[in-house]
Amino acid sequence: LLDADIYGPSQPKIMGISGKPQIGGLDGKTILPLRSYDITIMSMGFLVDPGEAVVWRGPMLMGALQQFMGQVEWGKLDILLVDLPPGTGDVQLTLAQKCQLDGAIIVSTPQDIALLDAKKAMQMFYKLNVPIIGMVENMSTYTCTRCGHKEDIFGTGGVQAEARKAHVDFLGEIPLDVKVRQASD
Amino acid sequence: LLDADIYGPSQPKIMGISGKPQIGGLDGKTILPLRSYDITIMSMGFLVDPGEAVVWRGPMLMGALQQFMGQVEWGKLDILLVDLPPGTGDVQLTLAQKCQLDGAIIVSTPQDIALLDAKKAMQMFYKLNVPIIGMVENMSTYTCTRCGHKEDIFGTGGVQAEARKAHVDFLGEIPLDVKVRQASD
Repeated sequence: LLDADIYGPSQPKIMGISGKPQIGGLDGKTILPLRSYDITIMSMGFLVDPGEAVVWRGPMLMGALQQFMGQVEWGKLDILLVDLPPGTGDVQLTLAQKCQLDGAIIVSTPQDIALLDAKKAMQMFYKLNVPIIGMVENMSTYTCTRCGHKEDIFGTGGVQAEARKAHVDFLGEIPLDVKVRQASD
Repeated sequence: LLDADIYGPSQPKIMGISGKPQIGGLDGKTILPLRSYDITIMSMGFLVDPGEAVVWRGPMLMGALQQFMGQVEWGKLDILLVDLPPGTGDVQLTLAQKCQLDGAIIVSTPQDIALLDAKKAMQMFYKLNVPIIGMVENMSTYTCTRCGHKEDIFGTGGVQAEARKAHVDFLGEIPLDVKVRQASD
């Protein structure tokens, strides 16, 4: 799991892990990633303190990302999942140009405002010749824990409709549930 | 209102406006912004189609932002509100270095994962000598529309607690409400 959100790395918190990666290798340039839940993880969050901001322009950002891709001793992996920040800029371009990507999964909440950005991300991956594996709807229908009333706070079905329009697979939905937030925190 | 989210401009949709800004001035370099709800607005969303991605590296991003700051005929304004994308990179740096900012308002949802990023943003503004005007809690407590049960889906009070710790003003909270989403969409 590569956390490619250099400015806002959330994976250490979500995966319940902290610590500094060790430096290894004969050249002293190899970064040894951390492990949690049997998953090998590298994140900018391991290199800076939680309250510390990484105030960097694009080229430094890309330098960090390239180190994560080239100098981390990932070992044998089934899949390398890269968690991208929002946007269609330096991080996304660098990743698509320097790596052979199998595909992109688009995660979006169902409301129009979020779908606007999801559509732009898909458009970018098309331009960069990265196949779209499918779309996931996040924060789908909320069910009241007291009365069972279902409310589509962020709407519902928007991602599935978009997937149909774009002729890509709809991979599923994650309900808006306080337990998901609590577990992440 | 300057929508500084070049990759994911949401303000045209939120403000219910579309169209292309006219070019004016004797030099043909002045951009005439649009208006909605009596607010003067400039956004990348007026210049590209909704489905079109702006796949740009940092320098082009900064070029667009500088045009928006320097070449838009804003007219007489009470306040110029700049809506920033997430992160602590090129857009934030360019804005702080090229403009005399009165201050920054930090908007965050209350859960830990989001507060991590809010703290980083504050740290960045401190480094850039931009005063923090205060913090706003977004997507605060949800109230079930059928039974009135209150649930802190994204937690509650997290932003207020953080404001207290950082000695900045807490400006208020916006409840998680389907009406907010519907109005934005």
